This record gives sequence, C-alpha cells and structure tokens, in this order.
Amino acid sequence: MGFFGGLFEFKGYKEPVLVSSVDGVGTKLKIAAALDKHDTVGIDIVNHSVNDIFCCGAEPLFFLDYIAMGRLVPEKVEAIVQGLVKACREVGCALIGGETAAMPGVYSGEDYDLVGFIIGVVEKSKIVMGETITVGDAIIGLPSSGLHTNGYSLVRKIFGETKAALNTYYPELGRTLGEALLEPHRCYYHQLKPLLPLIKGIAHITGGGLIDNVPRVLPQGLGARFRSRAWTVLPIFQLIQRQGNVARDEMFHVFNMGIGMTVICSPDNVAQLLRVLPEAKVIGEVVKQVGEKRVIID
Amino acid sequence: MGFFGGLFEFKGYKEPVLVSSVDGVGTKLKIAAALDKHDTVGIDIVNHSVNDIFCCGAEPLFFLDYIAMGRLVPEKVEAIVQGLVKACREVGCALIGGETAAMPGVYSGEDYDLVGFIIGVVEKSKIVMGETITVGDAIIGLPSSGLHTNGYSLVRKIFGETKAALNTYYPELGRTLGEALLEPHRCYYHQLKPLLPLIKGIAHITGGGLIDNVPRVLPQGLGARFRSRAWTVLPIFQLIQRQGNVARDEMFHVFNMGIGMTVICSPDNVAQLLRVLPEAKVIGEVVKQVGEKRVIID
Repeated sequence: MGFFGGLFEFKGYKEPVLVSSVDGVGTKLKIAAALDKHDTVGIDIVNHSVNDIFCCGAEPLFFLDYIAMGRLVPEKVEAIVQGLVKACREVGCALIGGETAAMPGVYSGEDYDLVGFIIGVVEKSKIVMGETITVGDAIIGLPSSGLHTNGYSLVRKIFGETKAALNTYYPELGRTLGEALLEPHRCYYHQLKPLLPLIKGIAHITGGGLIDNVPRVLPQGLGARFRSRAWTVLPIFQLIQRQGNVARDEMFHVFNMGIGMTVICSPDNVAQLLRVLPEAKVIGEVVKQVGEKRVIID
Repeated sequence: MGFFGGLFEFKGYKEPVLVSSVDGVGTKLKIAAALDKHDTVGIDIVNHSVNDIFCCGAEPLFFLDYIAMGRLVPEKVEAIVQGLVKACREVGCALIGGETAAMPGVYSGEDYDLVGFIIGVVEKSKIVMGETITVGDAIIGLPSSGLHTNGYSLVRKIFGETKAALNTYYPELGRTLGEALLEPHRCYYHQLKPLLPLIKGIAHITGGGLIDNVPRVLPQGLGARFRSRAWTVLPIFQLIQRQGNVARDEMFHVFNMGIGMTVICSPDNVAQLLRVLPEAKVIGEVVKQVGEKRVIID
C-alpha cells in the first residue's frame, strides 16, 4: 500500500454532489525555498483549494497533500504540514492523509513540490453555477492578501530570487519583498458561506486574473465590466509593475491585482452583502458581451 | 480558479464511506524520461491508486492527476494522459480532471512528476478491514507484472539510467531492461471485486514489500509466514539481485518479488478463490506473532 488516504463517512445530504480540485502551490515554492521558510505554503494550498471548490457552493470535506523532495528534510516537511494542519483546522476540513515522496534526481537542492487535493460536497439543489446571472448584476470583489498563488514566475523574472533581492525592505510594502511575496493565500469560505442564498455566481481569482476567471461563471453572451478605480490595487502589484515595466493588460492577466474572490449578485442584494462584508466593494457589473472580449477593465 | 475538478454525483449507497488515496509514480518516471516513453506511467499511477483503495473494498469513483514539468511539452503531456485515460476507462473510473503545471526552475531537463489522487466509495457494512483474520487463515498471492511502482531508486543505483544500460537486452527477460522496468503496474480490481464476500483482508504490495504491507491488515498479535518457494520470483528481480549483489532480506523489503497483491481468507474458501484466480497461489498463512517480527519468509 502506498499512502492510503483513509475513510470518510458523510451523512445528512439528500443528493450529495462531490466536488474536487487538485492544484499545486506553483513557483511560490521557489520563494519559500530561497528564504527557507516553509510554514505558510501549506496554508496557501489549502486555502486555494477551499476557495476553488467553494465556487460552486461546496463545503470542504477532506484534503490530501503530496510533498516531493529530492531528499526528505524532516524539519521542512514538518513546517509544511504545520501550515496544512492550521489551514485545514480553520475551515473544518479533515487533513485525511498525504504522501511524502523522496525523489532523488528529480528534485535537486532545496527544490520541492507541494500539491493539494480537496474533496467537498454540495447539496445538488444548491449548486452555484451562475446560470441565473443577467445583465446588470453586480460584481462584488473581496480583497486579496497579495499574489496568493499566482504570478510568481513573472515576479522571479523581474526581481530574481536571491536572498538579497527578497530581503530588500520596501517602504511602500512596510516589509521586505520576500515577506510580501510569501503572504498566504486568503480563504473566503467562512465569510461567504452564510451568504450563499444571496449569491448567483462565484469566481476565485487565480491564474489569468479577473480577465480569465470571471467569464467562467457567466452565461454565454454575457461579459463583465470592471471599474479599476473602485478598489485599491495593493502596493505589491504597483511595485511589480514599476520594477518590471509590465503593461497594464499583462498585470491584469497575470495577477489578481488586489481582488482574490468575486461574487455576482442581483443589484437588490448588494447592500445586504456589503453590510456583512465590510472589506468588499462593488467592482463591476455584468454586461452584454460586445465583440470577442468578455471582460473590460476601465 | 486553478483547476476545478468537477462535480460528481453518486447514488445507490445506504451508508457511503469515501475512501481516498494520493500517490506519485516515484522515480520510475526517471526510466520513462530516459527512454522518452510516457504512455505507460499514467497506467501505473491509476492502477496503483485503484489497488490501494480496493484494499478496504472500495470501488473507484473518480481520479484526478497532477503533472508538473519545467516546461510543458504537449506531446509528453498527451502521452501521459493517454495512459491515465486508458487505465481509468478499464476500471470505470471517471478521470474527472487534473492540473498540468509548468514550474521552471523546479523541474529541470526531462524531469517531471506525476501524482494521482483517487476517490472511491464502499458501503459501510462492507468495508474490508481484516478484523476477522485469525491464525491459520491462508494468504493468497497474485502475481505482479514487474516492479510496479517501487524499488526504482535502488534499481537506478545498480544499473544507472543511461540509454545504453536501459536498452541492453537480457535473454532471461526476453526484452531490454528498460522495457521490463517500464512494465505497467497491474490492476487487480476486476479479478478480485466479485470475490470480496470470500475475502477477509487485502494488502497491496508496494514500497516495503510483503514485509511491511501484509502486517497492516493483520489484527494485533498476528503475523504472516510465507513460503517463498510457493511462487516464482520474476526474472527481473533475480537479475537485480545478482547484478546489485543485494541481500535477500533487502530484496524482500524493497520489491514485491513477484507478488503484487495478497488476499487473506479462511482455509475453507481457498479452493473457491483459486478456481477463479488461475494465476494465484497460496503463498503463506497467518500465524501467531512470536517476538518482534511480524513476517517470516521461509
């Protein structure tokens, strides 16, 4: 038996639909490796995964991890698992098991990979699919804490990944670049879960930014129009754009630009949602799609 | 949204218990990379995973994969996925999705990783746990097709992983070393599934061999005694042992030695099982544990 994930009994659903997702932390791991700080990447992958399956309304049931290194370093594995445990506990998700693989010759030096698998469940009648979204619906954005888990290849190209570069203090960040880059992925589950009856569609803003992720929940023929002045683009993104001389379009395509999660609702429900989500803002609206572009960012 | 695994509805279970497992192919991938042959490693990870969860009687529901490379090579990804699809189809398991990650700087050259995540389900009253196993029960072994997915680090140490070494033809194998090493992991699901009512415990023989895997299903105080002459150790293992001058004990601890799956049953059911499993053999029996060793191999 390799790793055997364990048994999980669940009850209380009339027509349970299982929802699953798999993803890796990606090259944010290179930043963690360079700084030898491994207790947050586990939080990243759990929160990323929980947000992903929450997009259809699912609550997390259990999580499994895969950690691979050239040579297993117990303290490193322990730090990673600490992060996994912490984040799983916060959403009531069982860390039901995982596999830790030593793969000499595949991973070299400090490199490793961390992959998360999550299974959640949603009552069939309550799946959030976005099918009732119409023109004029509001798009509400919830702030991200930083890059979350996307855009690190570009960032590494711009700043490099030397300790010196990552330990540079930037006044606008109020901390070092490395600290800002390792800021964990935020989880939106607890905030949004009680609001599901008011929500028509949910998009987790990951690779591809608002441009690629929001259209996934829109019915055919509809697009999204964002007012970028409606929210504050985090200083880390301004720093990246300036330092790398990155075009605005590319920035919005690679990064979340300060919005980690979007929910779409009828204009009638906006006030009620904003009342309980003090950090959230209306950042755009659903429009009829004109031409090929589904997303316009003013 | 990163990868979003999809929805899976299941019905027809009174008290469904979900069973999950995560595992990687491991360094068998280095052999595949050296030979640039990628259409069987997907079969390996699916069959490995299906066997793993079948150990408690679960039938596979769906599978997700994670493929990571330094730079995505579409033909390589396609070949890998072909293997996944083929093996999933054979057991009626839905390949519900996966993530393909480009991680420059983590994976170099031809290296990649392939991880599988499986979810299965078993009726609570039918979970196979081994709790009824007693002294005198028979241990039936089913032949492996080769190394399956374990022992490749040792093999690479002995033979290296150059093309020349892997392309060497060995008369006793009837093929090249590389071909023998890439032989896909066998799946035992279809053969064993109808026999579950006759079976008390199942152990998938992976890393740790018979020595580590069989005791996992035995109640406390019980051990296993094997008669190694009861089955044919495959030529590939004889070649490895000779070439590497590996001690017998280590061989049995690292490799499956020709037995890919073991089932434990009452002596009364042996004849009935062997009738429908023509390749299977009684390879040992359950004994009272004496001393610290739980497994004795005569």
